[in-house]
Amino acid sequence: MAESDTRCDIGFIGAGVMGKNLILNLVDNGYRVCAFDLDHSRLEALLAQDAQERGDQPPRVEICNSYTELLARVKAPHLIILSVPAGGPVDDVCNKLLDAGLQADDIVIDTGNSLWTDSVDRCKRYDGKLIFFTTAVSGGEVGARFGPSLMPSGDPYAWARIEPVWHAIAAKVDAATGQPIERFEPGNPVKEGEPCAAYIGPIGSGHFVKMVHNGIEYADMQMICEAYDVMRSALEMTPQEIAKVFREWNKGVLNSYLIDISAEVLDTRDSETGEPLVDVILDRAGQKGTGLWTAVGALQVGCPAPSIAEAVFARSLSTRKVLRTRAARKLAGPEVTPVPAAKREEAIAQLHDALYCAKICVYAQGFDLMKLAAREQGWELNFAEIARIWRAGCIIRAVFLQSISDAYERDTKLSNLLLDDFFIEQIAKHQGNWRRAVADATIGGIPVPALSSALSYYDAFRRESLPANLLQAQRDFFGAHTFSRVDKPEQQKYHVEWSKPGRPMRRM
Amino acid sequence: MAESDTRCDIGFIGAGVMGKNLILNLVDNGYRVCAFDLDHSRLEALLAQDAQERGDQPPRVEICNSYTELLARVKAPHLIILSVPAGGPVDDVCNKLLDAGLQADDIVIDTGNSLWTDSVDRCKRYDGKLIFFTTAVSGGEVGARFGPSLMPSGDPYAWARIEPVWHAIAAKVDAATGQPIERFEPGNPVKEGEPCAAYIGPIGSGHFVKMVHNGIEYADMQMICEAYDVMRSALEMTPQEIAKVFREWNKGVLNSYLIDISAEVLDTRDSETGEPLVDVILDRAGQKGTGLWTAVGALQVGCPAPSIAEAVFARSLSTRKVLRTRAARKLAGPEVTPVPAAKREEAIAQLHDALYCAKICVYAQGFDLMKLAAREQGWELNFAEIARIWRAGCIIRAVFLQSISDAYERDTKLSNLLLDDFFIEQIAKHQGNWRRAVADATIGGIPVPALSSALSYYDAFRRESLPANLLQAQRDFFGAHTFSRVDKPEQQKYHVEWSKPGRPMRRM
Repeated sequence: MAESDTRCDIGFIGAGVMGKNLILNLVDNGYRVCAFDLDHSRLEALLAQDAQERGDQPPRVEICNSYTELLARVKAPHLIILSVPAGGPVDDVCNKLLDAGLQADDIVIDTGNSLWTDSVDRCKRYDGKLIFFTTAVSGGEVGARFGPSLMPSGDPYAWARIEPVWHAIAAKVDAATGQPIERFEPGNPVKEGEPCAAYIGPIGSGHFVKMVHNGIEYADMQMICEAYDVMRSALEMTPQEIAKVFREWNKGVLNSYLIDISAEVLDTRDSETGEPLVDVILDRAGQKGTGLWTAVGALQVGCPAPSIAEAVFARSLSTRKVLRTRAARKLAGPEVTPVPAAKREEAIAQLHDALYCAKICVYAQGFDLMKLAAREQGWELNFAEIARIWRAGCIIRAVFLQSISDAYERDTKLSNLLLDDFFIEQIAKHQGNWRRAVADATIGGIPVPALSSALSYYDAFRRESLPANLLQAQRDFFGAHTFSRVDKPEQQKYHVEWSKPGRPMRRM
Repeated sequence: MAESDTRCDIGFIGAGVMGKNLILNLVDNGYRVCAFDLDHSRLEALLAQDAQERGDQPPRVEICNSYTELLARVKAPHLIILSVPAGGPVDDVCNKLLDAGLQADDIVIDTGNSLWTDSVDRCKRYDGKLIFFTTAVSGGEVGARFGPSLMPSGDPYAWARIEPVWHAIAAKVDAATGQPIERFEPGNPVKEGEPCAAYIGPIGSGHFVKMVHNGIEYADMQMICEAYDVMRSALEMTPQEIAKVFREWNKGVLNSYLIDISAEVLDTRDSETGEPLVDVILDRAGQKGTGLWTAVGALQVGCPAPSIAEAVFARSLSTRKVLRTRAARKLAGPEVTPVPAAKREEAIAQLHDALYCAKICVYAQGFDLMKLAAREQGWELNFAEIARIWRAGCIIRAVFLQSISDAYERDTKLSNLLLDDFFIEQIAKHQGNWRRAVADATIGGIPVPALSSALSYYDAFRRESLPANLLQAQRDFFGAHTFSRVDKPEQQKYHVEWSKPGRPMRRM
């Protein structure tokens, strides 16, 4: 046996918020990591945080000064993880690594928020030069530090080498309860439980799945904001009262990270003014683009995902603050009488059910999108597993995901979540309240674009006949686009000669 | 003076439905046109239609057998019009024309449904080889034959040569009434009135404007279908009864081509079975992509255009007929009591106002999208003129467009249609009915995705404060995305240290 290799296990490039935390997570789990960042101050911040966390233990993180040094200090074949901004920087780093001597059997893992088609292109571009692998990471900075949800995709042989690393650092779920095992202690990572990391499929598929995750996240956040808005504006509740409602909701079917942090936010006071924090925050939502990509992807693949698109548009509209401020002074709303306190409990229960039912529809849209894209791309996605690795670590983690996983376990070929017996029953039971909540907001002038769009989706989905027959007739009238008949094979197309007497129909 | 040139004025390539009708329109207006199509049978059909239309007059249309012959038979510098499928075929024809000897001062006009960015790319690609100009055409086959709405863009010097041709063949509007002058007689084109053709701007802008036109068309059609669906399903009216309502509506503010043809459709019986035609048409909507491009464009430029996206998604969902049929048997709806006949008139009046208000919002979204894109691209669009050239010839023609044109005449810098005094007043007056119609459909289980999305848009637009403050706090909580404060300059970004006691806020 050769003398033991004293070089590092992993080279890590990019020590921003996500990178720094992933590195500390890796060293917590016993990996020797050599880190590099063009911005040396980030490496110093990394060392400082390591020093602060480890107390009097010896340093755990190693840093270096160049791509060449990085390659020299990491075992070959190299395993290099990138945490750099999506787009050009990923290619910059790959090219610099190749210049520094990276070899064809070295693995480079992109963990950024890359557009999935860019990953597919990169894999082709670097074929034969390096093994380009991707892993989409969800969970924000805390997830990265103590256990994210990981969606890896690419060469299955590379996966064999990466798997133990990702399983070690991923979030873990208690197999018995399906609940996240949460322990946020440096140096004491969670070792037990089911890891939230599973091989998704060929290159691109992991980032596609993560993209849909983010689309769902956009809609989930928007719907929570809509429920908050109704409580605040129509029910005239204080942030603290609403926090209490969210805490209550967090004990039941709506239990989720996003409801939990919403309660935390609403219970927080501004350290400067003492006002409720939420009241001093400007209502212009930022976005990094992944929700937009999901909506665009849905449009392009022909998948109805209206509630995700509504959430993206709601963020766009929120940025038009100047316009809205002018409009608020000029545009009429309905005359609204405040909801009497006695009706408050009932209205809150309606909102709860609206959020629950709409959430089911948003997941139905997201999983449908993955299904249609997988068919188009030839991916074989395991939807039960995707739902499982979202149960912990990531932003949309929720007890609810266990129900989705169960649904796909019961029927791996389930065509849409709305057709699963459990969800059929849930919506049947709660839809009355959902309708009431949306109708009341409609009458009361509170915008609920995502909650109501989900309801329209549900109502259209369960309609054997939609008014698209009139639409097809319109299209044939003005553009001779033809139509099919209900009593003839669909591939037979017909056109009405609209300008002729008696309007005869011709088979085309 | 040289002896008179006996060659043709215009070379025309592509004699499909649109091409054939544009050619006949050109010859009606006295232009000598030489037509070519790779599919010779289309040229024969063109000759046959010319023969049929002209009676015992001499032939008006000339045809040829090759690109080379086409160039030889048309005056130089050449004016060549293409009516070929969008995408690859446009480039095929350009390259064939170059091979056949096309010169740098020859003009090629693409009239197909091209994606606007493709037009921009083509203009660059053919720079110095030919003058690539585009003209988006709306109006379907009848419009092409007797007067379309034309949206030309590209080199302004080329426009000087094209202008008289487009002004001749375009639809005309009676300057006094703002109404289309409709005369559908071969050989007797409309010469008087204001032509619906105006130079839009640099290359790409014309097709962008036409794309938005089509996005508006998608939403308009979808909303008419929703109103039809409510009358059919909730009010239990027959197609003929609904036709009567549409005819009534067509006399007022909703007067439009789409309402008109919807009434025609609903009054038509299937020539085979004698049933109402609409009942034998399969409810799976087709689409050619321009609505989708509009929704994608809106997402990409950050413009809220949710009702257009909802219309595209509604078409996608309509194609999932097998899934819907299964869902119809399994998914619960609300318990619905039929609307009593005495309430019918009231419900119809509510639908009327819903359609009217929602239509204003859809146009507000579409014009906002053009405004944002123009800013990004550096185009100077004349919105009053765009509304004017949509008053006749095109699919969305409507009296309503005069009001839009007036609004932009009053204020050329109007930031959004919803801020125009006329529309402010209209919505203020009709919003109660709009809300009632949407709420009733919501309770009754009839999907009205576009009508309700437009209402959410209106209600969010007129809100000075949206719940995006909570959303920004969520984003800061899980991703350290920072936020601005209402009491500080917006460029100052803040982050709360959520895990620290007292949750101190730091300026970043």
